[in-house]
Amino acid sequence: MNTSISSVLQLREILAALPGEDGGAVAAWAAREPQLTKPPGSLGRLEDLGRWLSAWQGQHPPRLNKVVARVFAGNHGVAALGVSAFPPEVTVQMVANFRHGGAAINQLCTTFGTELEVIELELDRPTADFTQGPAMNEAEFIQAFQAGMDAVPADADLLCIGEMGIANTTAAAAIPCALYGGEAGLWTGRGTGIDGAGLDRKTQVVAAGVARHGGQQGLDILRCLGGRELAAMAGAVVAARLKRVPVLLDGYVCTAAVAPLQAEFPGALDHCVVAHASAEPGHRRLMAELGKQPLFDLGMRLGEASGAALAVGVVRAALACHTGMATFAEAGVSGG
Amino acid sequence: MNTSISSVLQLREILAALPGEDGGAVAAWAAREPQLTKPPGSLGRLEDLGRWLSAWQGQHPPRLNKVVARVFAGNHGVAALGVSAFPPEVTVQMVANFRHGGAAINQLCTTFGTELEVIELELDRPTADFTQGPAMNEAEFIQAFQAGMDAVPADADLLCIGEMGIANTTAAAAIPCALYGGEAGLWTGRGTGIDGAGLDRKTQVVAAGVARHGGQQGLDILRCLGGRELAAMAGAVVAARLKRVPVLLDGYVCTAAVAPLQAEFPGALDHCVVAHASAEPGHRRLMAELGKQPLFDLGMRLGEASGAALAVGVVRAALACHTGMATFAEAGVSGG
Repeated sequence: MNTSISSVLQLREILAALPGEDGGAVAAWAAREPQLTKPPGSLGRLEDLGRWLSAWQGQHPPRLNKVVARVFAGNHGVAALGVSAFPPEVTVQMVANFRHGGAAINQLCTTFGTELEVIELELDRPTADFTQGPAMNEAEFIQAFQAGMDAVPADADLLCIGEMGIANTTAAAAIPCALYGGEAGLWTGRGTGIDGAGLDRKTQVVAAGVARHGGQQGLDILRCLGGRELAAMAGAVVAARLKRVPVLLDGYVCTAAVAPLQAEFPGALDHCVVAHASAEPGHRRLMAELGKQPLFDLGMRLGEASGAALAVGVVRAALACHTGMATFAEAGVSGG
Repeated sequence: MNTSISSVLQLREILAALPGEDGGAVAAWAAREPQLTKPPGSLGRLEDLGRWLSAWQGQHPPRLNKVVARVFAGNHGVAALGVSAFPPEVTVQMVANFRHGGAAINQLCTTFGTELEVIELELDRPTADFTQGPAMNEAEFIQAFQAGMDAVPADADLLCIGEMGIANTTAAAAIPCALYGGEAGLWTGRGTGIDGAGLDRKTQVVAAGVARHGGQQGLDILRCLGGRELAAMAGAVVAARLKRVPVLLDGYVCTAAVAPLQAEFPGALDHCVVAHASAEPGHRRLMAELGKQPLFDLGMRLGEASGAALAVGVVRAALACHTGMATFAEAGVSGG
């Protein structure tokens, strides 16, 4: 079932032939939804989420028996440049915290019945400093991308993806800056909470990386400016499409990681919903480029798939309404 | 435990002496929150919700063992003026649907472990047509307000309130129009989905009601332009404050019903969070008047406490993070 990738060239062939919506499942959703005991459209995006689950699971009614979260962790060469408020060893420490159940993502997964797995990507081998050369060579990139693909269970009904990696909001800023242009400062934020001087330093690092690697195609931008956990998230999104698993994207780093897929193959993210608007200012700009509307805007900026895991509750609610509500005929309510 | 109200005068005395935040519980929250393994502030409003639960339950850690939703149903004299897309008998039919578990609110309550109760308020006796006179006399108003007060269990940890009542978005538009001014058209929306001619008619009804009853104090505006289910929601909010139960407000009708409390007694809604921004355009304007930020903006406009019930998931997630996360010291993570 798992697809194996050996080159960026082969990856582009797969992307060019991604499956689309399941028309039959969408038709079944559209036949049921207007019969439910409510004014048409009155559940707003909850209605859209039911359609989305049907379309990308390829079944009606859709189900949420197995909801999974995958958090990818990586380390970054640019961390040595003073772009984060936290030291790089925190990546390993937080992975341990995930495994012991002490992080926010653990509580959020427990709250909404989501199975969590953390995938460490060579934490003792940071990517190269992208101001000096590509963050990853092609073999490293493909290996990380493949790790993301392999992390998606074929029987999952919904996938949340997220990340942990000190300095990875620097990579997240550089990718859309290279893809869409604009000053580096427009895409660069305070991440875990760096001070003003640190933000200036971080913006210069982003600008230097984009100056060196800009002007390439999307996947090459991801390879040169991203990190292993970013490549893995992109891989997970592609595998989810192939395995018919709808995806909840998390915040800025997650959305930046998958933007190159859309930049090369319009529609590559159609099976993905952005869970929340991050407090990182570049995220809103990035979502506008992708034509995505977040479900939440709660000022969160933690990563770890926390926003995506929070949105599982909303998706469960949407499914419960679509499948559980009575029709006008069943309930004897006028006006259906 | 239940407070008994016999007049608007007595109600005003109670409102003038509402209890405030519990400072000790807030201090305990503030001592724990910065120790948790995340950058300070990175959970955004999830952090605020933990503070809010602590402050208004008056205990730390707060708890969510008993979460309840109360849906109040009433009928309106103005329904005869053609202001709704649905006939008035739908109020009774939908109450039956609630009792049989077929409505959206039933699915939402089940999804997030919320106990639902529906309170019918003399459905066979609509309020008076407010274009001709006050919707309720003082005795009727107090009776409905009291019904709302009595519906709040003293041992609840969180209360969702909402409503069902054909034509009640007309009342909802008239109340803030009378409280805050502005053209009736700025406050009047399509409700369950009325057409353009109907919207014109509805706007004229709102304007006529405000012309007749405007210029009074908040509670009199609620009595003259509201409905029984609106008075009951205001009563529930007051009782919740007295019983130390934080409240999730629903959409436009719900927020309009309680706005008169704030208009007379600034701070009267401090224990309330607005769950979602309704698609009814007046709701955003009303929230701005109240200084409230919704948790969701999902284009919902159903009522029934549906937005409030959806937000229970977010509040549960917030509590799980605040109480369940490891501290920096416990997890051995640097930088706390």
